[in-house]
Amino acid sequence: MRYIESFREGDQVSDIYLCKQKQTLVSKVGKNYDSLTLQDKTGVVDGKIWDPNSAAIEDYDSMQYVFINAEVTIFNGKPQLKITRLRKVRDGEFNPADYVPCSPYNIDEMFAELKKLIASVKNPYLGKLLKMFFEEDEKFAAAFKLHSAAKSVHHGFAGGLLQHTLAVTKTCDFLASSYGILNRDLLVTAAIFHDAGKIRELSSFPLNDYTDEGQMIGHIVIGSEMVTEAAAKIEGFPHRLLTELKHCILAHHGEYEFGSPKRPAIIEAVALAYADNLDAKIETLTEAFNGVTPGDPTWLGYNKWLDTNIRRTGIYDV
Amino acid sequence: MRYIESFREGDQVSDIYLCKQKQTLVSKVGKNYDSLTLQDKTGVVDGKIWDPNSAAIEDYDSMQYVFINAEVTIFNGKPQLKITRLRKVRDGEFNPADYVPCSPYNIDEMFAELKKLIASVKNPYLGKLLKMFFEEDEKFAAAFKLHSAAKSVHHGFAGGLLQHTLAVTKTCDFLASSYGILNRDLLVTAAIFHDAGKIRELSSFPLNDYTDEGQMIGHIVIGSEMVTEAAAKIEGFPHRLLTELKHCILAHHGEYEFGSPKRPAIIEAVALAYADNLDAKIETLTEAFNGVTPGDPTWLGYNKWLDTNIRRTGIYDV
Amino acid sequence: MRYIESFREGDQVSDIYLCKQKQTLVSKVGKNYDSLTLQDKTGVVDGKIWDPNSAAIEDYDSMQYVFINAEVTIFNGKPQLKITRLRKVRDGEFNPADYVPCSPYNIDEMFAELKKLIASVKNPYLGKLLKMFFEEDEKFAAAFKLHSAAKSVHHGFAGGLLQHTLAVTKTCDFLASSYGILNRDLLVTAAIFHDAGKIRELSSFPLNDYTDEGQMIGHIVIGSEMVTEAAAKIEGFPHRLLTELKHCILAHHGEYEFGSPKRPAIIEAVALAYADNLDAKIETLTEAFNGVTPGDPTWLGYNKWLDTNIRRTGIYDV
Amino acid sequence: MRYIESFREGDQVSDIYLCKQKQTLVSKVGKNYDSLTLQDKTGVVDGKIWDPNSAAIEDYDSMQYVFINAEVTIFNGKPQLKITRLRKVRDGEFNPADYVPCSPYNIDEMFAELKKLIASVKNPYLGKLLKMFFEEDEKFAAAFKLHSAAKSVHHGFAGGLLQHTLAVTKTCDFLASSYGILNRDLLVTAAIFHDAGKIRELSSFPLNDYTDEGQMIGHIVIGSEMVTEAAAKIEGFPHRLLTELKHCILAHHGEYEFGSPKRPAIIEAVALAYADNLDAKIETLTEAFNGVTPGDPTWLGYNKWLDTNIRRTGIYDV
Amino acid sequence: MRYIESFREGDQVSDIYLCKQKQTLVSKVGKNYDSLTLQDKTGVVDGKIWDPNSAAIEDYDSMQYVFINAEVTIFNGKPQLKITRLRKVRDGEFNPADYVPCSPYNIDEMFAELKKLIASVKNPYLGKLLKMFFEEDEKFAAAFKLHSAAKSVHHGFAGGLLQHTLAVTKTCDFLASSYGILNRDLLVTAAIFHDAGKIRELSSFPLNDYTDEGQMIGHIVIGSEMVTEAAAKIEGFPHRLLTELKHCILAHHGEYEFGSPKRPAIIEAVALAYADNLDAKIETLTEAFNGVTPGDPTWLGYNKWLDTNIRRTGIYDV
Amino acid sequence: MRYIESFREGDQVSDIYLCKQKQTLVSKVGKNYDSLTLQDKTGVVDGKIWDPNSAAIEDYDSMQYVFINAEVTIFNGKPQLKITRLRKVRDGEFNPADYVPCSPYNIDEMFAELKKLIASVKNPYLGKLLKMFFEEDEKFAAAFKLHSAAKSVHHGFAGGLLQHTLAVTKTCDFLASSYGILNRDLLVTAAIFHDAGKIRELSSFPLNDYTDEGQMIGHIVIGSEMVTEAAAKIEGFPHRLLTELKHCILAHHGEYEFGSPKRPAIIEAVALAYADNLDAKIETLTEAFNGVTPGDPTWLGYNKWLDTNIRRTGIYDV
Repeated sequence: MRYIESFREGDQVSDIYLCKQKQTLVSKVGKNYDSLTLQDKTGVVDGKIWDPNSAAIEDYDSMQYVFINAEVTIFNGKPQLKITRLRKVRDGEFNPADYVPCSPYNIDEMFAELKKLIASVKNPYLGKLLKMFFEEDEKFAAAFKLHSAAKSVHHGFAGGLLQHTLAVTKTCDFLASSYGILNRDLLVTAAIFHDAGKIRELSSFPLNDYTDEGQMIGHIVIGSEMVTEAAAKIEGFPHRLLTELKHCILAHHGEYEFGSPKRPAIIEAVALAYADNLDAKIETLTEAFNGVTPGDPTWLGYNKWLDTNIRRTGIYDV
Repeated sequence: MRYIESFREGDQVSDIYLCKQKQTLVSKVGKNYDSLTLQDKTGVVDGKIWDPNSAAIEDYDSMQYVFINAEVTIFNGKPQLKITRLRKVRDGEFNPADYVPCSPYNIDEMFAELKKLIASVKNPYLGKLLKMFFEEDEKFAAAFKLHSAAKSVHHGFAGGLLQHTLAVTKTCDFLASSYGILNRDLLVTAAIFHDAGKIRELSSFPLNDYTDEGQMIGHIVIGSEMVTEAAAKIEGFPHRLLTELKHCILAHHGEYEFGSPKRPAIIEAVALAYADNLDAKIETLTEAFNGVTPGDPTWLGYNKWLDTNIRRTGIYDV
Repeated sequence: MRYIESFREGDQVSDIYLCKQKQTLVSKVGKNYDSLTLQDKTGVVDGKIWDPNSAAIEDYDSMQYVFINAEVTIFNGKPQLKITRLRKVRDGEFNPADYVPCSPYNIDEMFAELKKLIASVKNPYLGKLLKMFFEEDEKFAAAFKLHSAAKSVHHGFAGGLLQHTLAVTKTCDFLASSYGILNRDLLVTAAIFHDAGKIRELSSFPLNDYTDEGQMIGHIVIGSEMVTEAAAKIEGFPHRLLTELKHCILAHHGEYEFGSPKRPAIIEAVALAYADNLDAKIETLTEAFNGVTPGDPTWLGYNKWLDTNIRRTGIYDV
Repeated sequence: MRYIESFREGDQVSDIYLCKQKQTLVSKVGKNYDSLTLQDKTGVVDGKIWDPNSAAIEDYDSMQYVFINAEVTIFNGKPQLKITRLRKVRDGEFNPADYVPCSPYNIDEMFAELKKLIASVKNPYLGKLLKMFFEEDEKFAAAFKLHSAAKSVHHGFAGGLLQHTLAVTKTCDFLASSYGILNRDLLVTAAIFHDAGKIRELSSFPLNDYTDEGQMIGHIVIGSEMVTEAAAKIEGFPHRLLTELKHCILAHHGEYEFGSPKRPAIIEAVALAYADNLDAKIETLTEAFNGVTPGDPTWLGYNKWLDTNIRRTGIYDV
Repeated sequence: MRYIESFREGDQVSDIYLCKQKQTLVSKVGKNYDSLTLQDKTGVVDGKIWDPNSAAIEDYDSMQYVFINAEVTIFNGKPQLKITRLRKVRDGEFNPADYVPCSPYNIDEMFAELKKLIASVKNPYLGKLLKMFFEEDEKFAAAFKLHSAAKSVHHGFAGGLLQHTLAVTKTCDFLASSYGILNRDLLVTAAIFHDAGKIRELSSFPLNDYTDEGQMIGHIVIGSEMVTEAAAKIEGFPHRLLTELKHCILAHHGEYEFGSPKRPAIIEAVALAYADNLDAKIETLTEAFNGVTPGDPTWLGYNKWLDTNIRRTGIYDV
Repeated sequence: MRYIESFREGDQVSDIYLCKQKQTLVSKVGKNYDSLTLQDKTGVVDGKIWDPNSAAIEDYDSMQYVFINAEVTIFNGKPQLKITRLRKVRDGEFNPADYVPCSPYNIDEMFAELKKLIASVKNPYLGKLLKMFFEEDEKFAAAFKLHSAAKSVHHGFAGGLLQHTLAVTKTCDFLASSYGILNRDLLVTAAIFHDAGKIRELSSFPLNDYTDEGQMIGHIVIGSEMVTEAAAKIEGFPHRLLTELKHCILAHHGEYEFGSPKRPAIIEAVALAYADNLDAKIETLTEAFNGVTPGDPTWLGYNKWLDTNIRRTGIYDV
């Protein structure tokens, strides 16, 4: 397949892309034309159809996959497609995985690693709860593997939720080994569930946008609800343990102003909030450094989330 | 019954009080003595038992009702009881209502008014939801009538939750009549449920303290959970309507820093947050002015919640 | 009259509009042309005069009313006028009310309702003060009826000050009936005067911009000044009552950071601040929902003043 | 006169003091006694009258001047008076200036310096305005010379308002000479009037407490009002100049959160806010260092207003 | 030795303690007495010398070690010593380690672990820098092993600086293994040096108080200075590498409001700030839980640093 | 020389300018062209080279001085150069001072005034320290005279650092004369050094951008370092005096959130922070008013740094 990031001026393109957005506009001379955003997993590109009524242009809509013939031009220094033919394609003609940005890590390997961590939880109630989601609920497990963790900021790609969850859980596992006061079973379980509510907060790829429930309730409360409902089906689940697990989920943003309705009040909630926040910051920088040569001393300008200018660290081989 | 607020120096007291707290201390001369906090609905008073091993002093503990013989003395300008006899009493010897602070309004009348508002909700799903709690669940209804709305700040008395809920709902009812854009059924229902989670956040009187679940989860998320569970039993309850109702409950503190995991995003949530906050402020002042003659121009000093010195308004009869 | 909101591509327009802004620019080929913003009460539209030296184009300036002949074109998806003739018009050729955005409610009816509320104030000093402005000062009353309450945010239209004042006063009237501790006369009077300083803070339509005094002193202090000066003419006006009224005006933004030099210290000031803020928020949403079908579940994006994404509430007819 | 700061254990005191506060309490053995706070300009001291019904103790009340016979004892490391005789004194028996804390600078000299600055203002309208207060209004001038600038923080002594006003005005005078862009007449006039509202915000000595108007309106708005009323009596006073002067007064706290309803929008308002704030901070430290040997390296602990621990600077004589 | 935490009413005590504070006071009957604070590593206790002029009481001062004969009494529910004999002791009569609170971990083992981490740094410049402090500068190394990390909050005991530094460095070591983008040598080195400035910010035990330099400059800038001076002695130390190391030290509090003059701008600075903050929070809770039975569900009340009520987590043995 | 601010449409320009930025772009018709930013001390102008491969266009790069032949056109209302010839020039063909914005005051006169203030410092250690930089280190002195004090905000021109330092020092000198408690030598010295770190924080003109060290360490800590290193070479420099000087430098931004790692804890640090901040604000306004006629009443819109709309003050000649 011909990926968008490889487009160069003058190229002829004949391939399938996801039409993420479509708009019909009017040119200065009064003619209708279509302006499209096409997407594959390497990025997006603008396209123009100057003659949308041509027989060579089939009916189509946003969020559909289309086969196009086009020429690559440059506008304002960026590639733009001049599309001359377009037809909708059927499922099976393309591999959806080619059209969504994806985690750089192997999803199956990450999931296997997560399941090993699940298997290591000794408390039977927490262990059962984890298995209800990640082993017995195949639909949930499949969705969890492919979900993103965000619409546009860090981990906003397929597998992003899994990648983030695994990294946070591994850090929590380390912390439990480092600080004996931490309850490892509770901390690891809370880490695995902390962002599970994102399954309902964000729609699946290729749309990957906030759902109505996501905007109104949010993944923090949704995650607490999910755990509440499941635990109700486990006989004898200790009430205090469930309260602590829910508290860890509710408090994992650490502060009221980041949307947590409670501040961390037990030590595992404190540890989880740090592990979560740290992974988010490191991934934010990792993504910001994408395309920057390691060791490049150039300042990349202001990063809103870190509230400072940023740059890569030097490399000092000896 | 002899109420605490009427104690004067030199009085002899022989009556039943709730022993809210009990502490055994050592005097300067090395003798043990007991220091108690006794409570009835008009207030609290310190008591001392200088000879706790006397035969006249039975075994007792905190949160028990005790009959005492005592003399009223004054210490640091406040009444203090010198207790010479004490015995535990049995249920039936006293009326619990005499020992908890209580709303100045009639509880049954307030509840009847609330039920009239419930009956006025036309949407069948919201109407059914309200009835499941306030009509069909007698235990809930009974608890709701007697619960406080706080441990120590405004509405911290029996009937406080009902009084606050009714006032907020009435203001919302007025707003729905004043601003046609508001969905009255949703707003009134959300007003009635907005603090329902306090049933589990605070224990009942006479203890009236935060529960473990209250500290860890909080009434905002508990209330959302209660509504979620109940709506699951109503066939066909529109998902979007439930989401809106839960959003109103979750957002009713208006700001992240006051513990809401979402800011009001629909207009009914905005109206509810104002009505709730306004009633809290007015009740705070009403309680602060308790005992101050109407029209008294004296400044009462700094009020923490209003972040300013306060005083009563003048009276200008003509 | 031909309203701007009805312009469609290709229309020929021959009518009078307010020229809100005028700029002389130079085209890429080095020729002068005029770029105008024309306004009527339904909106604004850009216009171009490609040949400003033509005999068909009279001298004119911004903030003048002009009769134009023009053709509607589309540029960047929005209507734009290609103006071929233009002449200034005289007073009398047009109705100024057609050129300013206006409250959706009837101004005379609103004013009558406000006067009923004024008549209901029993305290003779407050009653006299209200009458001095709203009955005896015809110029003030006329201005108050037509003033906007803002330059660009909520209630930024003719009659906006009246509409906002009436809504706030009605809510205060309800609150006084609901909470017996409130001094109704003081609260209603303060509500009616709370934004009166906007008469001097904002210039009249069609300009509707901040005055020098508005920027330097602000409507809060101006309003307090207006009341101070008028009360000085009423013999025997109780000093404490005047202080309370001024305090309500000065504190009505509720917090220092919103420009109030004092936080509400008496209960009526608290109630007024809430009623004012609530009406502002509800009107903000009402205006944001303008043009959105009731019940439309689409999210409208971020609203700066509410600091959240917003959407309309659902409609659940049964 | 025998000053309070010189009291030592065992001293016999027979002199006149101001009784600032009086409280009747009950001892552990059930007897009434009086607890007083006595004040002179060097400080305050607690006193006890163990036998208030004795013939040697006349009737008296708080805020009265009393002649006492007493012995100095030490309680909790601080002097305390055991009062055995007390009688009220008449005006004339004492010099009120002995009983209020007073500026360390000569009041008449400071006032003369201020009047020289007033005389240097060339703009006739501003000059006339200043003279209306400081020359023609003898009552105002007399009050201004003796007023404090605060109840308890910096400059909380007789002459404090004058001392602070003079220091701020001198700094403004320097700034006008240093930065040519500043309008000296406006800046100097604004500096002289900036805290004039304190005349009505605080009552006079010896009470020196907030007035009702002070709490409700505040010296910022009161000062603006005073200038508005006076300027109305000066024919032809330019409206824009008056607006600028009022703006400087209203904005002199620099930020909304310090009670200014407007932030400084003209350059003189910026300069005044800095000069005012700087003098307040320097005086705060000067008073905090009172009694500390110059050069003493000891840390004095946390200073709330500076939000840091503080200490005196070293002395490095060579 | 007889430790303070074991004192019970009526005990006779004859042992050596550190006199942390000494004050001479006057009793109600006018006699001088001494009030002391005595300290050993288990805590502090108040002592009184009612007859300081007795021949049995030698001259002594605060921060000296004294041998006492005393009886344990109880005052306000806490032990208090009635001291009848006191003499100063010489170095050698006591073991200073008995008089300072101490890390619960073995200091030599911790230091060995830290040196292993130092040995693992491959970059020769960073490795040399570390060795200059921790191997070649014996005085520094000895001080580092025994220093506390705080005056009164977390890690405020001998070995606290080492314990904290080791925990932070181990977490950073884990993070470098978990996130390949991190420069391990830089991160580990920065972790080891991040609080090195505390050597000069706090005086050594037993005083353990802020130094003048600590209050005026602070350990963040001191640490940066220490590294700057040492690196100047290493030929060829890359300027950019030194800048990055200093930046990590300067930015390790993460935010301006916690005293960092720069926010983390490179990824290692981000990781360090989290590891540091997390260890501080976990140690704060660990110390707060000191004395609470693991699993005890009781709420411990408000913790200022975490800004919430806290409690221990449950234990769920199966 | 032909200055950029004098360019008018149709002018032919043949002169030397600094090429601040250079970008090669592609036109809509697919041809390469160059887009340049040219600078002299009066401003910047865009230029286009439509035929960069022409023999008339020599090789060149950004930050080089170039001689051009061009015609002035107007694009989007602003001048734009159509460049037809371009050649690089050699040092000597131009005066660098013509190409950087410059202080409106005479640099040598300002420096002489600063040296007079330096000479007035009586403390021998501080005097020596000042001379080491401003007299003995010619390279430093030369750089200090020409450095800017900022990249883009106030004092962002050659001589800006000197102009700002002099103004702040003069104000501090005045304050020391006005408030006897201030240590003049310390305050004046701290004022002179407070921004010295900008020498390393910002690169010299014409680049005038943040250095790597500037972004990572910042001028506050750099300045403290510079003073530390120099004082180490002065025998007997009192440690406490050096600590106080460094504290003044570190604390001169006054608040943590402005990048100071310590808040002012001694009185000279307080005074310096005010003098610094005041000069910055006055210069910000002075630059904002550049080009506005004195007395012009027009509002200039929102000023971000003052957080308010601003305007010039009126002129009231009599």
